Amino acid sequence: MQINVIGIGAGNPQHLTLEAIAALQESDAVVALDKGENKADLLGARQYIIATHAPGIPLITVSDPPRDRDPADYRAEVRRWHQARAQLLLEALPDVEQVAFLVWGDPALYDSTLRIIERMRGLGLDCSVRVIPGITAVHALTAAHGILLNRIGEDIRITTGRALLDGPTTNAVVMLDGGAAWLDVPDAQIWWGAYLGTELQVLRSGTVAEIGAGLAEEKAALREQHGWIMDIYLLRR
Amino acid sequence: MQINVIGIGAGNPQHLTLEAIAALQESDAVVALDKGENKADLLGARQYIIATHAPGIPLITVSDPPRDRDPADYRAEVRRWHQARAQLLLEALPDVEQVAFLVWGDPALYDSTLRIIERMRGLGLDCSVRVIPGITAVHALTAAHGILLNRIGEDIRITTGRALLDGPTTNAVVMLDGGAAWLDVPDAQIWWGAYLGTELQVLRSGTVAEIGAGLAEEKAALREQHGWIMDIYLLRR
Ligand SMILES: C[S@@+](CC[C@H](N)C(=O)[O-])C[C@H]1O[C@@H](n2cnc3c(N)ncnc32)[C@H](O)[C@@H]1O
Ligand SMILES: C[S@@+](CC[C@H](N)C(=O)[O-])C[C@H]1O[C@@H](n2cnc3c(N)ncnc32)[C@H](O)[C@@H]1O
Repeated sequence: MQINVIGIGAGNPQHLTLEAIAALQESDAVVALDKGENKADLLGARQYIIATHAPGIPLITVSDPPRDRDPADYRAEVRRWHQARAQLLLEALPDVEQVAFLVWGDPALYDSTLRIIERMRGLGLDCSVRVIPGITAVHALTAAHGILLNRIGEDIRITTGRALLDGPTTNAVVMLDGGAAWLDVPDAQIWWGAYLGTELQVLRSGTVAEIGAGLAEEKAALREQHGWIMDIYLLRR
Repeated sequence: MQINVIGIGAGNPQHLTLEAIAALQESDAVVALDKGENKADLLGARQYIIATHAPGIPLITVSDPPRDRDPADYRAEVRRWHQARAQLLLEALPDVEQVAFLVWGDPALYDSTLRIIERMRGLGLDCSVRVIPGITAVHALTAAHGILLNRIGEDIRITTGRALLDGPTTNAVVMLDGGAAWLDVPDAQIWWGAYLGTELQVLRSGTVAEIGAGLAEEKAALREQHGWIMDIYLLRR
């Protein structure tokens, strides 16, 4: 079996590449993990893409196994969870030649699909893997703001809210921040975006000192209003 | 005037997004900087994209002004050079409603187009700017190798060969390396790719201690053979 791991972009269905569309059309079935009501919009995006570019290809959704969001050992819990997902997916995998996994953004950036496939192999799956790159949330953010990631010659760091203060905050892109980690860096500039590429898109920018506290309230209110939020930001000192 | 700054992906014309194609088709002209013989292939990629998706749209090429590649003050020389490019482009800009700049990879990552447009504005140009994200060389690299950028929870750093040893080399993606900076990190794993997404693509991986020296020779030989090279790599300790 061949597994096509296809990056679909991070919100806007127009971010799909020609290569992604071709790989989707070559696939015999699409497998997706249903992350529960909260992220129903994400499953909806996949359904829209299939209906638009490869109508008729079956979509097999597998419910996500439960996960401890505040474990004592973060990495161990993530590993346990990936193993449970691999087991579920392996059982649901149809017996066809090519299966597509539609991955939010790009498959190399904070996504577990490639790790789960590795685990499915460990559980006995015999497959080849082809990866199709996609537009990441990082570039959805910079494009929406019309900005560069860095000043001339500077480095760029991509990190999670969890680890923000462990490294430099010159050009730090923060993803997966459940809270408002920017508040830890009051002297930085921030370019923030939520629901990028979707109808709900919200953009904010300014210095953390000036807009940071209000933004934390706005993020909480948006999450409350829509039932979920995905946000990403660039901090620059 | 509206300027559409369009990311076209980093080598494979199939990395073009639907949004990029639509923005190209809406444009009345395409402006490109001709970087001289060495990178003629890059101009060729743009010509191919126009011929395929928007035949008939005029392509205006502007020759790059000369640049000092080994200046005493790197940033100052880059700034001087950007100003010269802005001046040339401004003179060449056609009098139409929408102009497209086709940018290699994504416009936010080590690309000067947005800075040059800022300078053209400084010289008096009245325009709005729309940025269309593109697949970067970073994700062309990870997709070709079928790898993730980081292990669970880890940061990612994007840097230039010039500055590699100024920061951590856990998950360091190195771009714009004129030499073989990986040799400075013998205990790292390396995933290397050159001419990604093109017919000339070459992939190598291993530990720097084992393959680093041979890779430096191979890179020099490839540059000699083709007259130019573009390579990128992930280092992980
Ligand atoms: C599990 S990661 C997946 C990243 C994805 N693979 C990519 O390449 O962008 C999810 C994080 O990406 C960011 N993200 C993804 N899509 C986004 C969107 N449309 N708007 C804002 N942030 C987004 C958020 O930081 C979110 O917490
Ligand atoms: C001026 S930067 C432009 C980066 C581009 N904006 C992007 O998003 O990928 C050029 C560097 O990108 C990398 N690069 C771009 N295209 C590449 C390719 N097809 N293969 C290997 N490296 C590439 C190389 O490191 C090269 O020195």
